[in-house]
Amino acid sequence: MTATDARLAELAEVLGPSRPGPSRLVTDPDVVETYRRDWAKDPAAGTPLAVVRAGSTEDVQAVLRWASAHDVPVTPRGAGSGLSGGATAIDGGIVLTTEAMREITVDPVTRTAVVQPGLLNAEVKRAVAEHGLWYPPDPSSFEMCSIGGNAATNAGGLCCVKYGVTTDYVLGLEVVLADGTAVRLGGPRLKDSAGLSLTKLFVGSEGTLGVITEVTVRLVPAQPPASTVVASFARVEDATGAILDITRTMRPAMLEFMDGVTIAAVDDALKMGLDRSARAMLIAQSDAVGGECEREAAFMAEAFERRGATEVFRTDDPDEGEAFTAARRFAIPAVERIDPLLLEDVGVPLPALPDLITGIERIAAERDVTIAVIAHAGDGNTHPLIVHDPADADMTARAHVAFGEIMTLAIALGGTITGEHGVGRLKKAWLPDQVGPDVMDLTRRIKHALDPTGILNPGAVL
Amino acid sequence: MTATDARLAELAEVLGPSRPGPSRLVTDPDVVETYRRDWAKDPAAGTPLAVVRAGSTEDVQAVLRWASAHDVPVTPRGAGSGLSGGATAIDGGIVLTTEAMREITVDPVTRTAVVQPGLLNAEVKRAVAEHGLWYPPDPSSFEMCSIGGNAATNAGGLCCVKYGVTTDYVLGLEVVLADGTAVRLGGPRLKDSAGLSLTKLFVGSEGTLGVITEVTVRLVPAQPPASTVVASFARVEDATGAILDITRTMRPAMLEFMDGVTIAAVDDALKMGLDRSARAMLIAQSDAVGGECEREAAFMAEAFERRGATEVFRTDDPDEGEAFTAARRFAIPAVERIDPLLLEDVGVPLPALPDLITGIERIAAERDVTIAVIAHAGDGNTHPLIVHDPADADMTARAHVAFGEIMTLAIALGGTITGEHGVGRLKKAWLPDQVGPDVMDLTRRIKHALDPTGILNPGAVL
Repeated sequence: MTATDARLAELAEVLGPSRPGPSRLVTDPDVVETYRRDWAKDPAAGTPLAVVRAGSTEDVQAVLRWASAHDVPVTPRGAGSGLSGGATAIDGGIVLTTEAMREITVDPVTRTAVVQPGLLNAEVKRAVAEHGLWYPPDPSSFEMCSIGGNAATNAGGLCCVKYGVTTDYVLGLEVVLADGTAVRLGGPRLKDSAGLSLTKLFVGSEGTLGVITEVTVRLVPAQPPASTVVASFARVEDATGAILDITRTMRPAMLEFMDGVTIAAVDDALKMGLDRSARAMLIAQSDAVGGECEREAAFMAEAFERRGATEVFRTDDPDEGEAFTAARRFAIPAVERIDPLLLEDVGVPLPALPDLITGIERIAAERDVTIAVIAHAGDGNTHPLIVHDPADADMTARAHVAFGEIMTLAIALGGTITGEHGVGRLKKAWLPDQVGPDVMDLTRRIKHALDPTGILNPGAVL
Repeated sequence: MTATDARLAELAEVLGPSRPGPSRLVTDPDVVETYRRDWAKDPAAGTPLAVVRAGSTEDVQAVLRWASAHDVPVTPRGAGSGLSGGATAIDGGIVLTTEAMREITVDPVTRTAVVQPGLLNAEVKRAVAEHGLWYPPDPSSFEMCSIGGNAATNAGGLCCVKYGVTTDYVLGLEVVLADGTAVRLGGPRLKDSAGLSLTKLFVGSEGTLGVITEVTVRLVPAQPPASTVVASFARVEDATGAILDITRTMRPAMLEFMDGVTIAAVDDALKMGLDRSARAMLIAQSDAVGGECEREAAFMAEAFERRGATEVFRTDDPDEGEAFTAARRFAIPAVERIDPLLLEDVGVPLPALPDLITGIERIAAERDVTIAVIAHAGDGNTHPLIVHDPADADMTARAHVAFGEIMTLAIALGGTITGEHGVGRLKKAWLPDQVGPDVMDLTRRIKHALDPTGILNPGAVL
């Protein structure tokens, strides 16, 4: 028995006797292979000793106690749908997935739900909808991303322009710290000023400070049916002009942007009869109640027309509206059919959005790569998709240069390198440029205070 | 020249030459006296060496560099309206007030404002209202509390039941750390997942991790005019029943509770002709738009009637509604006219609200003290006001016993010892009971990482 085998035997022992169903400790190389990377498909991902599919907080504690004792790196993982390499395995480490922890309890009176981390965002939405309630955060990947991963990355989505991001809905967490201690932070209380805001510190910490084993989320009354307005533009600057016209006056429930490359790719995939000659398309919604919804939708339609939209379409039919929203959500897989993507997540203060989009066009031309742009335009968060053929080494190199240049541009415009995906591994080289050396130092001090031996998600963020 | 005089001369030197207007460094004992305590009037407050009225971030940096070099404790202070003793001076320390830092810049396009900490909450509301915007958090003290203090305590208010608390509106901060380093965290971006959520960690940290020198707040469109429904009840349990009936179905914009003692005290002070025979009064608002407002107000009025309200009054007149809201806001000063108060801020998950109120009545009877109860009932945050005559030593002792028993009760009901005022000094003995030893340890690790020599607000929270 090698030293590694002995350690794994010890891990199997601390995880306790096998229960029915799939084993918690997985060492089958074919299965382990599927847990080495998230959707960022980091080619530098290592090969872990094993994967642990935690079934409980106690399992997570057992793994972290064992990992602390043996100084083994642990990569926490939710559904593996991350796009920044936040769940990239380490050679000789453990991938600790919470995907099997899937319970939820909804309390309609406090309008909160206590959710285990493995439940998918869409499953949370469905469970609370049975009580006439709504969990707003809606990453485009909502059918396949987990609530634990959403909390770990402070995920966003389409409705953030009106409803805010994940942290705005997290009232409490159970977190397992590096040494295996489980702590309860916050709880089902809208107001709680007792002690430091530790709950919010763990939201968005990407598995570097602890492993989230339970999330208490705030819920709101069910969203009223939305009115949808879709517009096509021959010029990108007309679309960005319309965005600013709208946001300086009202707060839409959704305001999404797709550029010409994306429109064509989505139409190729979904055959929706989109206007393929358009350079930009905006999809906006109002979910105001009663006559106010009509008023907001009309205001947005007028803003589009005033900015010279070539086509404006309005519908109060929820299914018709959802078809356009689904088209927008399908943009990344659609563009990915052209070739693999380097996926950006840069955001800027809204007035800088036109400059960001123009700058991206310039970078695409200079680096001779195709960059499709989709955006949660109403909140300034964009996803430039850099298309490249991995077989073409020169193009791939140019794509990577463009990837960095876009983040540098966003920083120069007062923006962020990541609005909702997290830093992970793919963006960490640019984090110091955004936040500066003093904030990096502060970050390291907190990381060191909470994970002194650095076993939690090493290589991510820092 | 004594060592102390030499140090103060050095502080005067680092604060630079005097500018016009009041001096930044204040050592006049009469003036210093007014800065020793906040509204909690902590009798254990020390006598500081001096007060510094910072005029800029650079002033705050100069003070903290000097204090770090000489290991002098610093008590950060906003408007001094805190109710938990979070700004209680230390013997031989410095009180560092940001009250003179009062600039604001509003950006209607990003719907954000960059505010210096000394601006009052009401002044922020007025400045943004000129742009048709609204900063929701509304502590009852909004005319005299500062935005810096609001951020430092994660302040709440009346509208939180629908609109959330201060942290939900803070997108960015400038903070000066213990060693004098100024860092910028977050910024005017609705979405930002770059690095740890340090902004949110400093919100609610009560001056123990750094001094807030600038706050970037998120704004929302102006609140629509509200419909107000006021009801009186002969039995407290009818009122709490109505609260749960409402919150399980809809989300009011305000839902406030006053008990019989408070009703009488407010009526004594304001002569409003309130029903002084009532044991409870509820003040509710809907700010939904159009017909929905009418529907919500009618629903609440029906809920009150169904629960046997002795009187129900509805008005769409904003001034009439504001008169009742102002009466509720005036409750603390009104009850204080009876005798000095020990002021609680306990919150519970909403279904436990009736048990909390019943339990408080029991404690009042057992300890033979008058306890008036007001509550932000819609979010479960209550302010039991323990009335006591400081000249009566036995009553004062009984009041202090009741003060602790109410916090212990709230904890037992799954609640918090402070919903919106902060822990300060008055509640710190109960913080470990609420959060447990592991969370206390985590708190100490973060405090130590950020303020290793413990110069920032020693005695508060920890």
